[in-house]
Amino acid sequence: LTKIKGLAVFASDNISSSAYATEEIMRVLVLASVGALALTMPLTLTMPLTLAIVAMLAIVVTSYQQTIRAYPSGGGSYIVASDNLGVLPGLIAGSALLIDYVLTVAVSISAGIAAITSAFPVLYPERVLLAVGAIVILTLGNLRGIRESGTMFAAPCYIYLFAIFGLLAFGLFRWATGTFLPYTPPEGEFHGAGQALTLFLILRAFSSGSVALTGTEAVSNGIPAFKPPESRNAGIVLILMGTFFGSIFLGMSFLANQIGIVPDPTEVETVVSQLARTVVGTGWYYYLVQFSTTLLLILAANTSFADFPRLASIMAKDGYLPRHFSFRGERLAFTSGIGVLAALAIFLVIIFQGSVTNLIPLYTVGVFVAFTLSQSGMVRRSWRLRPPRWRVSMTINAIGATATGVVAVVVGVTKFALGAWMVLVLMPMIVFVLLGIRRHYGRAQRELAVSDEEMFTRPDLNPEQLHHVIIIPLADLNRAALRAVAYAQSLTGQSAHPDEEGRARIVAVHVTDDIHDGEALKERWVRAGVEVDLVILESPYRTLVSPLLRYLDALERQQPDATVHVTVLLPEYLPAHWWEHLLHTQTALQLKGALLFRPRTAVTSVPYHLRD
Amino acid sequence: LTKIKGLAVFASDNISSSAYATEEIMRVLVLASVGALALTMPLTLTMPLTLAIVAMLAIVVTSYQQTIRAYPSGGGSYIVASDNLGVLPGLIAGSALLIDYVLTVAVSISAGIAAITSAFPVLYPERVLLAVGAIVILTLGNLRGIRESGTMFAAPCYIYLFAIFGLLAFGLFRWATGTFLPYTPPEGEFHGAGQALTLFLILRAFSSGSVALTGTEAVSNGIPAFKPPESRNAGIVLILMGTFFGSIFLGMSFLANQIGIVPDPTEVETVVSQLARTVVGTGWYYYLVQFSTTLLLILAANTSFADFPRLASIMAKDGYLPRHFSFRGERLAFTSGIGVLAALAIFLVIIFQGSVTNLIPLYTVGVFVAFTLSQSGMVRRSWRLRPPRWRVSMTINAIGATATGVVAVVVGVTKFALGAWMVLVLMPMIVFVLLGIRRHYGRAQRELAVSDEEMFTRPDLNPEQLHHVIIIPLADLNRAALRAVAYAQSLTGQSAHPDEEGRARIVAVHVTDDIHDGEALKERWVRAGVEVDLVILESPYRTLVSPLLRYLDALERQQPDATVHVTVLLPEYLPAHWWEHLLHTQTALQLKGALLFRPRTAVTSVPYHLRD
Repeated sequence: LTKIKGLAVFASDNISSSAYATEEIMRVLVLASVGALALTMPLTLTMPLTLAIVAMLAIVVTSYQQTIRAYPSGGGSYIVASDNLGVLPGLIAGSALLIDYVLTVAVSISAGIAAITSAFPVLYPERVLLAVGAIVILTLGNLRGIRESGTMFAAPCYIYLFAIFGLLAFGLFRWATGTFLPYTPPEGEFHGAGQALTLFLILRAFSSGSVALTGTEAVSNGIPAFKPPESRNAGIVLILMGTFFGSIFLGMSFLANQIGIVPDPTEVETVVSQLARTVVGTGWYYYLVQFSTTLLLILAANTSFADFPRLASIMAKDGYLPRHFSFRGERLAFTSGIGVLAALAIFLVIIFQGSVTNLIPLYTVGVFVAFTLSQSGMVRRSWRLRPPRWRVSMTINAIGATATGVVAVVVGVTKFALGAWMVLVLMPMIVFVLLGIRRHYGRAQRELAVSDEEMFTRPDLNPEQLHHVIIIPLADLNRAALRAVAYAQSLTGQSAHPDEEGRARIVAVHVTDDIHDGEALKERWVRAGVEVDLVILESPYRTLVSPLLRYLDALERQQPDATVHVTVLLPEYLPAHWWEHLLHTQTALQLKGALLFRPRTAVTSVPYHLRD
Repeated sequence: LTKIKGLAVFASDNISSSAYATEEIMRVLVLASVGALALTMPLTLTMPLTLAIVAMLAIVVTSYQQTIRAYPSGGGSYIVASDNLGVLPGLIAGSALLIDYVLTVAVSISAGIAAITSAFPVLYPERVLLAVGAIVILTLGNLRGIRESGTMFAAPCYIYLFAIFGLLAFGLFRWATGTFLPYTPPEGEFHGAGQALTLFLILRAFSSGSVALTGTEAVSNGIPAFKPPESRNAGIVLILMGTFFGSIFLGMSFLANQIGIVPDPTEVETVVSQLARTVVGTGWYYYLVQFSTTLLLILAANTSFADFPRLASIMAKDGYLPRHFSFRGERLAFTSGIGVLAALAIFLVIIFQGSVTNLIPLYTVGVFVAFTLSQSGMVRRSWRLRPPRWRVSMTINAIGATATGVVAVVVGVTKFALGAWMVLVLMPMIVFVLLGIRRHYGRAQRELAVSDEEMFTRPDLNPEQLHHVIIIPLADLNRAALRAVAYAQSLTGQSAHPDEEGRARIVAVHVTDDIHDGEALKERWVRAGVEVDLVILESPYRTLVSPLLRYLDALERQQPDATVHVTVLLPEYLPAHWWEHLLHTQTALQLKGALLFRPRTAVTSVPYHLRD
């Protein structure tokens, strides 16, 4: 990826938060006012808070420069924390990120739909439906294989940047010339308004605004995707991202304050929409701003659809998630990862009624926990490895870790009752499950391990000592059955004459409720000269599985030797049309299910393809 | 079964229709009246119609005596029609019966709940929920293995008979002495009232009442269950059933007319309940009548849970339903049959709001189609085989066939718009599917058939000419993998040294995205002295299945000989706890799915059971 495409691919998540960051600060500050006239005072705090958050962003971007240099093959929080702090911090960071990806989808899509409903308020009552629809379309697109291509991303990201910078420039011109269009603040009461402007409330506003830092990690995850020199290019993109986003955020908050914008208590119209209306009117430029915002937010959500399976694959390789997730390129792993992500995001959108404000408390806390762990890990790394200039790096990372740690605590405390508690409860639960999975794999691995000595001394691993009985259940004397018999005979090296003394014994078995039918089959069998024994099992109660299992039990009692291995060989008909499967494979499936838990019993399917 | 138990088991379905037959006649007749005062005139027709239906019943019972003699091993309509009239009439009868069983459940349960809500009108709004609950309980009971036991059936059936005959006797005494309790007809308008008393309406009333003949076939299905002489005992039970039911039906209609009972327009209270109230008051005897009615109706519904799988098994043996249904004693077949029956019955109860009156038009038409076909089959049989007294039998069956045929047409015409059309549309659709299934099996059987000559001349059936390649995909060098290798070596008779020139070649395959890991595994493999080749497949896109499939393709291109058979041998870990399955079997499942449609590729699962 070039820097231009890299910016579009990895920065969209972060830059898109400019669509709601200013508004979320204002939505908290506005609670410190009674009635419309008293609004101005607390809202003027928006600008200082924005400055504080942009300063935070500068610290985080600087701190991540060290990570990018140290981890040129990709340094997400899970990797950095596991590497330097140990298993538990790594898993906490990992679970925070998994939650974060789900929330990125829910928040970005909700904000994207809010940009649409701002332009078309008539759609507002359908926002949950629209958001769910958008997630479903995104999911189907990803399942069908639309991956993030640089070009596809580049267009919306740069359209957004041009549209927004144009809007801000024109807004600053209007401010300088005092020619803002007339603005009427939206009416209505804020739920919970009339509070005192306490430090707690200000910190809560700061917490809400710090959602602006989400998505910062994307660049350090994706370093290997850049053109060489990868780390250098990634570092430049990260700085560009911070600069662009910081400028938009500051400009937005400044203009909103100057115009005197008040967030809409009904949540129908966004602050960005109000700002655009007051600067450029509701002409084509307004719609350009709204649509490009929606598009960018949808693409921001899309990054999670790539990041979630990637993280799951890394964690699965380490044994903390089911192993099949590690085959990231595999349909099953990708599909199940995407499916889980989409289902949870839809669940959140429905529960929180597609409201960004309601989702924010859950979003921010996990992100800052991951930041703190990742940067603490970098501090530890510098101390341990002492790379060149380690004192500088360590100081930068220590500042970053402290700052983000403080914010994590501030967010956790001020947003606790508003929803952060859910994440703080969920994270240890996820960690517990991850550890349980790892423990299981560890036990399994220990149990399965072989030392060089026992390799050929254990009788069950020694081919010289294993004997075989092959059971072929069959419904009729037909090609599929004969193919299965021939398969068994040739595989075991038995040809013309069955060799009862040999290593493998082959027995064909027919289950019937009508002994006359069975006898007729046996006669045909003998007449045809098939050189394998046919056993007829009578089943007066018209069952198939239980007589076979009883027969296997009897065989085992005859040969209680642990070195006898039973193979049940099922001739399977595979029809030409999928719906015909229902007519053929049910009994085979049933037998396989019944045999699954039988020790030392292998099951072989020998397919016979029907052409018609 | 003795006659006493046989009556209880096989007659409950028919006798239980006395709970609604009188009412259904009246509900049609009442439409020919305007206002409450004009009610009496049309309702007096109830008694003549009842007499006509009881005469029909006598004809059918007499006609079925011939069937019972001719088919001592069970003569349901499907068997009799297939046997004597050919495939298509047999399938029409079969599909009519399958629909009939579903409707027996829906109607009997709805009527049973109506008997409850008559006694406790407060439950009326919950009738659909109650009916669905009853079907669910019945289904679970049947799935858990509660089959019809004679004793369990005998009690409710005889309690009902005693309760009802007591009620009728006391009712006749009250009629003779003119001491009926005071009766007020229920108020309200009948939907569609004020029609002229046309012949069409009278025929419609007759059609509704002819629901009284449902369940008559049960005895002839169950002949083998009787004590010897089976046919004789079954014949006696059939006559007893007709006599009991006929007396109850006549007595009920007579008393209802004498009291002047009018059906409840709101459907809250049944006619039987009104009658019982007017004869014995609302004391304990009233509740005895209501509860025993409900119990009998639930047991009548239960007979379908035995009859449906039985018919499905007979039809599956003939190839008209998926083969696994023929293993009637098998859990899967029984479960899926019961499941389909219950789901359809619940669907009907919900759609028709648990109203017997709404369901009746669907119920009767299928039953009479089956009657007509069965008795026409008997006529044909007498003509063909000319057994002793064949002229008498043939005449009786011809009368039966004509009478039921006329009723089938009458029901079809008078109830067409009320719902009979659904059944008349559904029946040919079911027949079409049944024929499609049979055609598929026929094609498959022809394709699979082997003549004696080709038995050993076809190369793919000749063990002498088959060669094998065994592929063992493995994730690690551990016990499960070594067990699989030892399994393959011993099964093919290869022991100490791999024999490249032999009949079977064994190759272990490891898929990795990290070539260094792969090389390390290979080194360990060689050092350990495993005498089977290990192939490392690199998968840069982190997929598992596609590199393996490509490898199999390459193998096949190397050996384009049709006599080479590939076996993919999967070492499968079977964990001790079910939830741990998710951690192990996903990749194996995925591979199996991908290999399912590959010709000449067998799949073997070699289980390794984890103890912990």
